[in-house]
Amino acid sequence: MKTIKIGLIGFGTIGCGVVKILQDNRNIIKDRLGASVDIVKIADLDITTDRGVKVDPSLLTTDVNEVLDHPDIDIVVELMGGYEPARSFILKAIENKKHVVTANKALLAVHGDEVFAAAGKNNVGVGFEASVGGAIPIIRSIKEAFVANQIQAIEGIMNGTANYILSKMSDGDHDFDTVLKEAQDKGYAEADPTFDIEGIDSAHKIAVLTRLAYGTPVSLDDIYVQGISSISSLDIKCAHEFGYRIKLLAISKFDGKAIDIRVHPAMIPEDKPMANVNGVLNAIMVCDDLMEENILVGHGAGALPTGSAVVADVVEIARNMISGAQDRVPPQSFQTSSIRNIPLKDISQIEGEYYLRFWVLDKPGVLSQISGILGNHDISIESVIQRIKDDNREGVPLVMMSHNAKEKNIQAALKEINHMEEVFGKTVLIRVEK
Amino acid sequence: MKTIKIGLIGFGTIGCGVVKILQDNRNIIKDRLGASVDIVKIADLDITTDRGVKVDPSLLTTDVNEVLDHPDIDIVVELMGGYEPARSFILKAIENKKHVVTANKALLAVHGDEVFAAAGKNNVGVGFEASVGGAIPIIRSIKEAFVANQIQAIEGIMNGTANYILSKMSDGDHDFDTVLKEAQDKGYAEADPTFDIEGIDSAHKIAVLTRLAYGTPVSLDDIYVQGISSISSLDIKCAHEFGYRIKLLAISKFDGKAIDIRVHPAMIPEDKPMANVNGVLNAIMVCDDLMEENILVGHGAGALPTGSAVVADVVEIARNMISGAQDRVPPQSFQTSSIRNIPLKDISQIEGEYYLRFWVLDKPGVLSQISGILGNHDISIESVIQRIKDDNREGVPLVMMSHNAKEKNIQAALKEINHMEEVFGKTVLIRVEK
Repeated sequence: MKTIKIGLIGFGTIGCGVVKILQDNRNIIKDRLGASVDIVKIADLDITTDRGVKVDPSLLTTDVNEVLDHPDIDIVVELMGGYEPARSFILKAIENKKHVVTANKALLAVHGDEVFAAAGKNNVGVGFEASVGGAIPIIRSIKEAFVANQIQAIEGIMNGTANYILSKMSDGDHDFDTVLKEAQDKGYAEADPTFDIEGIDSAHKIAVLTRLAYGTPVSLDDIYVQGISSISSLDIKCAHEFGYRIKLLAISKFDGKAIDIRVHPAMIPEDKPMANVNGVLNAIMVCDDLMEENILVGHGAGALPTGSAVVADVVEIARNMISGAQDRVPPQSFQTSSIRNIPLKDISQIEGEYYLRFWVLDKPGVLSQISGILGNHDISIESVIQRIKDDNREGVPLVMMSHNAKEKNIQAALKEINHMEEVFGKTVLIRVEK
Repeated sequence: MKTIKIGLIGFGTIGCGVVKILQDNRNIIKDRLGASVDIVKIADLDITTDRGVKVDPSLLTTDVNEVLDHPDIDIVVELMGGYEPARSFILKAIENKKHVVTANKALLAVHGDEVFAAAGKNNVGVGFEASVGGAIPIIRSIKEAFVANQIQAIEGIMNGTANYILSKMSDGDHDFDTVLKEAQDKGYAEADPTFDIEGIDSAHKIAVLTRLAYGTPVSLDDIYVQGISSISSLDIKCAHEFGYRIKLLAISKFDGKAIDIRVHPAMIPEDKPMANVNGVLNAIMVCDDLMEENILVGHGAGALPTGSAVVADVVEIARNMISGAQDRVPPQSFQTSSIRNIPLKDISQIEGEYYLRFWVLDKPGVLSQISGILGNHDISIESVIQRIKDDNREGVPLVMMSHNAKEKNIQAALKEINHMEEVFGKTVLIRVEK
């Protein structure tokens, strides 16, 4: 029986998951692949900490070149994350004619062009299913299942930490900081949670998917990104009252001319499947001209879910090696000659319905003044919740749901309203996605 | 640029969808595949009806052999459905060394062994993504994305007609017959809806998925199948009151020793994503040792969704042809040498919670008598709804939710209860799936 030899760079959470899967599920992989997958080397700066998986100590090395230059290794699996030195290691592996599997969305979002060009030049495969949605087979589905489809939109909950926080806030009357602290204690949020809660991780992921869906590179700087740290438990309660759930969504829509790409908290009608995707689960919806919508739901993070996607990519490359396939599926989903630069829309060009939560002085006339400004900007209001004063804080919340309106009008109106003497702090704006 | 030549057998709804996709999305397919897919022949008994897609009349034939024996055709796409003559046509195509793509779940559920053996012998590919879940990429996901995973359960809403009927009954106080009639008028249900509403279509699909998930053939006769025709709007209302939705589920669970495979209406907690999959949508959940659950939701039927899965299979085979891949992925997911017969569990061996709806004489003592029988069979009751008499029918409904109980005890108890003089008709039993 043939043996495929792989080397790992990075022996952290996902690395351990991959090692465990290749050990525990060795037989099931053989039964399906018809070959064995053997780990030949594992490189990490720390090779002394006990990580709970048993590996032959001779496999471990602190010298990454023992992986990159190993003559027997067919596939290099990069699981260290971050931009550098991951980028240099991957490029070196590719130059050494090794196939690459990575879970590194940050790297692909920023240095994707360089990595894919190098892989094409050196005729090696690049697998990155694990970079978006953990165990959710979204990349494989876009590249192979929806291959004949004109994709019109990709939309999803792509960060488990943010979804966990919003779900927990939704379960009870918990504020953001309390839930974040709890998530950190449980290991669902990192000590520095910025990438997750401020939407940057989701932006990396939607950049990767946009490239595959429409055949265009995307610059991370051009993506509108807004996180969830301004969402309060009051917003979550009001959303419930209006029949919505609040989720951090990554969105990429293509109208055939330009792409509307953005990450922000959004209100989803509560009877939609995606509104009921809670906890650390992720969900990604693909809409196109043939199948309307297709939603994939699953665990977007964790050693074993993400590890299972990594191993699936290893098996895919192994299958190409064994069956003699060359360039079977282009790594960017489109043939290189068909990739072109599609312009991106600015957030000011979109339109939709909006949730607006003001904090206002509790006196007559304020509601009429705010409605007046909104009206002047062509924004009509569908419903209003005015709360009574219930704590020591000055002022009361005033919550509105708009009818369909233009983002640029909303922004102009909010600028005026935020300057009113009777309005405290910055207004919370949440876009509605139906 | 290379051209892949295909022939179609069956020019009905799905056949027209495939033709339309290959025409309308010719460029997007080229951009991704790097080759053209051309239809060389289309065989159907009726080639005169206008089907709303334009095809060169010289492509049409009533003689299936013009497809099966055509020297230029690489891939035969069978879209006529049913057991025969589809089986003979597919076997003939395989014998002629043509790759085959089919949407025919009935055929694969009953004659799968024969088809896969012939394909293996003749070294051709068999694509059947469209046979289960329409546009949902469940087959590709099981074969490729979950390749390192020990699958423990597959569970899903696999019939759009049945789901449409249950959803419509759930939306208002509509009875089964009224909604079925409406579904037939709208074209969502066939004139003879037996396969869909009695669960047979779902049984075909779960048989196909079970083969792929665990590497075992399944005989259709060994699957417990119960349809939705006994479900009343009262059951749907009571389910709501208990916090559940009723869905027709196809279930296949593997505990490492035997497979529990069945199709029946089931109660799902209303806060689960699958409970909110409504209308003609399908949803399929896969559970395994690595990723817990993964749910795929999408359109399970229709010309374009199903057609998109057919074309994806055509592209997959085209990619193998172009890249020179041989036997890349075994069509049954497992290597032939690893396929073995796994025993199936009888429904009497399962246990769980149950919804029971009796129709009883409205007199004192009946509740106590029924509870007594249930108690004697080790079944304890979690909650009871006793309705007041509200129509001219004799008796009143008595609805119970059990705690965890054994199916064989439930069946024994119901046998006794159904024989009571104070009980009318057959008790409705719905299993709870959490």
